[in-house]
Amino acid sequence: MTVAKQDVRPLAERARAASRVLANAPTPQKDEALRGMARHLRAAAPAILAASAEDGAAARKAGKNAAFLDRLLLDAPRLEAMARAVEALASLKDPVGEVTETWKRPNGLQVRKVRLPLGVVLMIYEARPNVTSDAAALCLKSGNAALLRGGSEAARTNAAIAHALTQALREAGLPEHALQLVPAGERESLLELLKLEGLIDLCIPRGGEGLIRFVVENARIPVVKHYQGVCHVYAHADADLEMATRITLNAKASRPGVCNAAECLLVDRAIAEHFLPEVGRALADQGVELRGCPTTVGVLTRAGVPVKPAAEDDYGREFLDLILAVRVVKDLDAALAHIGRYGSEHTEAIVTGDAQAASRFTREVQASAVLWNASTRFNDGGELGLGAEIGISTSRLHAFGPMGLRELTSQKYIVHGQGQVR
Amino acid sequence: MTVAKQDVRPLAERARAASRVLANAPTPQKDEALRGMARHLRAAAPAILAASAEDGAAARKAGKNAAFLDRLLLDAPRLEAMARAVEALASLKDPVGEVTETWKRPNGLQVRKVRLPLGVVLMIYEARPNVTSDAAALCLKSGNAALLRGGSEAARTNAAIAHALTQALREAGLPEHALQLVPAGERESLLELLKLEGLIDLCIPRGGEGLIRFVVENARIPVVKHYQGVCHVYAHADADLEMATRITLNAKASRPGVCNAAECLLVDRAIAEHFLPEVGRALADQGVELRGCPTTVGVLTRAGVPVKPAAEDDYGREFLDLILAVRVVKDLDAALAHIGRYGSEHTEAIVTGDAQAASRFTREVQASAVLWNASTRFNDGGELGLGAEIGISTSRLHAFGPMGLRELTSQKYIVHGQGQVR
Repeated sequence: MTVAKQDVRPLAERARAASRVLANAPTPQKDEALRGMARHLRAAAPAILAASAEDGAAARKAGKNAAFLDRLLLDAPRLEAMARAVEALASLKDPVGEVTETWKRPNGLQVRKVRLPLGVVLMIYEARPNVTSDAAALCLKSGNAALLRGGSEAARTNAAIAHALTQALREAGLPEHALQLVPAGERESLLELLKLEGLIDLCIPRGGEGLIRFVVENARIPVVKHYQGVCHVYAHADADLEMATRITLNAKASRPGVCNAAECLLVDRAIAEHFLPEVGRALADQGVELRGCPTTVGVLTRAGVPVKPAAEDDYGREFLDLILAVRVVKDLDAALAHIGRYGSEHTEAIVTGDAQAASRFTREVQASAVLWNASTRFNDGGELGLGAEIGISTSRLHAFGPMGLRELTSQKYIVHGQGQVR
Repeated sequence: MTVAKQDVRPLAERARAASRVLANAPTPQKDEALRGMARHLRAAAPAILAASAEDGAAARKAGKNAAFLDRLLLDAPRLEAMARAVEALASLKDPVGEVTETWKRPNGLQVRKVRLPLGVVLMIYEARPNVTSDAAALCLKSGNAALLRGGSEAARTNAAIAHALTQALREAGLPEHALQLVPAGERESLLELLKLEGLIDLCIPRGGEGLIRFVVENARIPVVKHYQGVCHVYAHADADLEMATRITLNAKASRPGVCNAAECLLVDRAIAEHFLPEVGRALADQGVELRGCPTTVGVLTRAGVPVKPAAEDDYGREFLDLILAVRVVKDLDAALAHIGRYGSEHTEAIVTGDAQAASRFTREVQASAVLWNASTRFNDGGELGLGAEIGISTSRLHAFGPMGLRELTSQKYIVHGQGQVR
């Protein structure tokens, strides 16, 4: 414990010092560093890919599965995509210094709200090396110093990436401690970091629920987290059935392993007889296993569509797989009640031609994104136009939904007077 | 521990259920409840003042000092002020449902950001019964259920106040569990509450540093906190000396016990010889004890103004008293360095006629409020025009500075499409 303490506190102190410089760094200097990061990532490709191959060999030896290796390994196109993502941030608007509001008080005081960086951001993630460059770039653009703790299985790759990125910081005249890797795999040092209130302003854990719970339970610093996405598509009585099928297919099957994929389809009783066979067949054709309520099972079985009965715990479950719970509901109120009970406040969608029903749904559903006639998959920083995201928050404090550059800032009051006193 | 667990979890569960109703309560219904709260506070005055007298007698018996009793005790004018503060919220704009931004994506998706309540707010405070009605009213207007845990010395008063407020909720047709008192004085039940992640969305501790540290160290739920205000006034080389004196006097002496009072005066070397005797005499006349750097001591002693030498730990210290540290600095850079080192990111002020110096100061100082030619005392929800505040945050996450109604909300994305998929 003592050893770990000596190890990570200086890291955080250097980050804090770097954050003071970054907070006032001019936009062109930060953008120059971002472009330099992309250049250095490309130039260091041989070293980075060699490190990735080494990490991959070790992971294979450790018996990691194909999905794990897929997230872990880099190849030339993936590295190029990382470089482009970093570069793209250079052309986004700098959130720091943005005046979000201004007003005048009766006593003549002029008040402005102005964005400033959060300070030091600690990112904790698993073996996905692209997060290293994404998070570093987002933090830099928003004026924050970054402490990055990736999964230990990606340690060689992350070190090679960070080495390239740091060179760009140095060349742009920015403090190289604006970006530091935290030793991976040491639980003691992570615990230590999570207690460094006053040195670290925000911790963002990204990964499995176990990791996130560990962080929440042990942190004394603020955490913005994302537990899980139990997202619903509700096909309302007035839904365009073709549109509802298209949206359900996309929400479930386009990428079942992500948090904005749908896990449950709610079907209004009024359209169940017509809609269920149509959507069921389309889903089955895409290899989706359906787990239905008794009504669903009856309708689909009569229509010759394969279906299993849903267990009670299939509702509210994040399958992250080609499995979909299906439930017939009496009406909008029943759909709202189901979502209130089983939803995870992540993403919820309604398909309907009825503007009043849509208005009630979007107003009453408490989730980070509520969609009307669009796929749940749009709850994503890029898709919503934030430019890029560092994660999706399911807690309402500070940020709810995708966290882009703005969500990596806070706001201060700047007040201009002519000698006013109270 | 088990007993406490059984006691407070149902409280939080009822608050959560109430919060779901409150989140969709129409503005007129909430405003009606607020006006009813004011009415019931007035009608219950005899009971509330009797309870206050009992609390006061017990506190006197327990040997509490005059300052404590002053915060604890209510009289008719104070109760009327509480009723008026609650009433005033009825005429403020409802933050819930406010569309803060809207934009269109290239694929035709229409995106809106819309305010929604945080959910359940746990307020922890000391023996100041006015916080009970203030916090209850702010939470109600912003659609949040409130769990209020005041100091045990005010338990009788708080119970009488909550009884009056709850009647108004019932009459307005709102869930009475929207406002619940938490048993005061039981540390076990507080610890239990602080771990109820998923049931409580935000904890706001208000009080001494010991209380706040206890909350931060034990909470698994998000905390927005305010540690202390070590606020500076910097009289720049181009300051109007009369204005600088007026602002310094107001910042230090108008109410020395509050967090936005100044604790340190920085004087530019260029004006030290003229300004220090002037401001020093004015401060001394108000009974302010000055603790100066060697230069300050020299100048003031020659001018016949009483001054003590400052100890190193007088910088960065929150006196909350008629004591002011005074330091002569070389220039703007030295002032910024001093504030960076000793400030608490609460409130900082510069007095200058030089717009460029002011611009650097307001940009570079990282504090929740930075003032140019105005007193630090203006960092206050009412003074800045937020209407009312539930506390002042010195952490940058979620809210930085005064927390008004808006800061008691989050924002969700509402997306309107025509069948778009990814």
